[in-house]
Amino acid sequence: MSNLELDHDPAWLSREDLDAAREKLPILYVDAVPVRVDERGEVGEVGVLLRLDAEGKVCRELVSGRVLHHERVRDALLRHIEKDLGPVALPRVPVAPQPFTVAEYFPTPGVTPFHDPRQHAVSLAFVVPVAGDCSPQNDALDLTWLTPEQALDPGIQAEMDRGHGVLLRQALAYLGHSV
Amino acid sequence: MSNLELDHDPAWLSREDLDAAREKLPILYVDAVPVRVDERGEVGEVGVLLRLDAEGKVCRELVSGRVLHHERVRDALLRHIEKDLGPVALPRVPVAPQPFTVAEYFPTPGVTPFHDPRQHAVSLAFVVPVAGDCSPQNDALDLTWLTPEQALDPGIQAEMDRGHGVLLRQALAYLGHSV
Amino acid sequence: MSNLELDHDPAWLSREDLDAAREKLPILYVDAVPVRVDERGEVGEVGVLLRLDAEGKVCRELVSGRVLHHERVRDALLRHIEKDLGPVALPRVPVAPQPFTVAEYFPTPGVTPFHDPRQHAVSLAFVVPVAGDCSPQNDALDLTWLTPEQALDPGIQAEMDRGHGVLLRQALAYLGHSV
Amino acid sequence: MSNLELDHDPAWLSREDLDAAREKLPILYVDAVPVRVDERGEVGEVGVLLRLDAEGKVCRELVSGRVLHHERVRDALLRHIEKDLGPVALPRVPVAPQPFTVAEYFPTPGVTPFHDPRQHAVSLAFVVPVAGDCSPQNDALDLTWLTPEQALDPGIQAEMDRGHGVLLRQALAYLGHSV
Repeated sequence: MSNLELDHDPAWLSREDLDAAREKLPILYVDAVPVRVDERGEVGEVGVLLRLDAEGKVCRELVSGRVLHHERVRDALLRHIEKDLGPVALPRVPVAPQPFTVAEYFPTPGVTPFHDPRQHAVSLAFVVPVAGDCSPQNDALDLTWLTPEQALDPGIQAEMDRGHGVLLRQALAYLGHSV
Repeated sequence: MSNLELDHDPAWLSREDLDAAREKLPILYVDAVPVRVDERGEVGEVGVLLRLDAEGKVCRELVSGRVLHHERVRDALLRHIEKDLGPVALPRVPVAPQPFTVAEYFPTPGVTPFHDPRQHAVSLAFVVPVAGDCSPQNDALDLTWLTPEQALDPGIQAEMDRGHGVLLRQALAYLGHSV
Repeated sequence: MSNLELDHDPAWLSREDLDAAREKLPILYVDAVPVRVDERGEVGEVGVLLRLDAEGKVCRELVSGRVLHHERVRDALLRHIEKDLGPVALPRVPVAPQPFTVAEYFPTPGVTPFHDPRQHAVSLAFVVPVAGDCSPQNDALDLTWLTPEQALDPGIQAEMDRGHGVLLRQALAYLGHSV
Repeated sequence: MSNLELDHDPAWLSREDLDAAREKLPILYVDAVPVRVDERGEVGEVGVLLRLDAEGKVCRELVSGRVLHHERVRDALLRHIEKDLGPVALPRVPVAPQPFTVAEYFPTPGVTPFHDPRQHAVSLAFVVPVAGDCSPQNDALDLTWLTPEQALDPGIQAEMDRGHGVLLRQALAYLGHSV
């Protein structure tokens, strides 16, 4: 059974069970900021996914997803990058477990800069260089590569909801960029 | 309703529900390594709790506990320190959400250095200076303050199970100590 | 001999020698972002110094200064905080040597977001909670406490040169704030 | 002029000038722990250099070297890895400036776990995955790849002086390993 099937395996968690758990427990997530780097490790571009949200409005998102039962954090990171960027993105999963930040998504807006109407999610956030070909998968319309300057554009930022715009700026700050 | 009551509030999670969730989801924890520091921020001692385990054997542990639904990570840290070290420990909760490491406790031993037979727990680990009076609470028999050298003693390490000895050494390494 | 006297002790480095070294070696610095925190470790305010620059223009700065020969990084941090904020600021010097970022100040503008016309300085940057009374010392006109939102104000940011505005925003990002 | 030539360029610093500076200023270094990783980012091996020390005794060392005037930290890291591991090591220089630790080497033993009889050096330490062929260069006799367990062997550790054994264990702790 591949990792991708885990999400749909009733042995793990039915939709109903997950919905029940979401009302009672913080759910563990990983967020990944995909980047293109040169041979000096300098980030030239960050990758942002374009999707349609529930109301059919275009929105931009980072790679994000749940950590499953009995799954290592690094495997969850790899699985979600593969799920969103395709099987040949060649991600360089971070060597250390220390995330650059922890994003706390609350169902109530305003508690933190992060918001998720469905649940209380706590996400370990990592910057992940990708060296291969990336192509948007599943429900993503497009994957856009932006320079750090373009990523800070208010128009781009306005299209990122749930606080993903803040998380992207926090990632750029961590990378040593002006934000 | 105080934070301490949350754990026992049926609106949050019954024992049965928690047991069910533990079989299906990673559970979010915080681990805290309490330390005594001088005015230069140099760590002089680390605090380790002494308990009796299920078989009545003496064991040593760090401060550790679950993050509740709708609870901030920093509030969970404060709550568990208060629960284990008492109300006047005066902990200096870290200013930033970045933990020094993330400890992945698996129900199967050997997947990582961390092990929890009850569940798959993922724990954000922080070093927390405490400036006030600490007294062991609840089921803790004692709180022992150890120099970094004493904490590395094989006899002490042998009494720390679930990987807490490893986590303590990782904390000392992070603090710049020889381990 | 107090730490403060070290800077003027000819045994360490004459002005001429320092000037000569500055043309040939990167100079090691520490930068500190002083903050006020509540008992949960949440940052309420950041402290910014107000000075007159060489042309008599008002400018805002973080606490910053050189690490001396044979001086520990944590002692340099403590010494510069005392030098700029006074002897009873009660700084909580970080327990671990890992800085939240390393700011590379180049004499040539544009190499990095940080610039120092006098030298190539490499600075270990830390967020430092201060619990006591702070009063500006030496050539500082004032110490202003700003909320994170106020610190991001373009007017404030415009008064911070050498990249200190960028460093302040990077610190806020590290603290989990929207920037 | 290549980066490698900078070290010998009199415009930068003569041997006499460097010796003079070493008596009066902390000298900025970078330390790199080269590692082999799998596609999940899990570290399988760490690389350690074998040299003869001044007395002709075999000793083991990490990659280490000075940051030059007007040189970026990431360029210094790349240059020293190339100098020690050869031109096709394909190092993945870290994307962010935050080191995993800062090692303070004092000329006086015992101030910190790090010691350098020649100077007071302050070193930014990074873990650097290398994906290409590595061959020891210059005065290195050999490059040994060790599993994390082998790296902790007391015999190996005893051959690492100046505190490089401690730094290696701190790196393994940062990587989530038992130390």
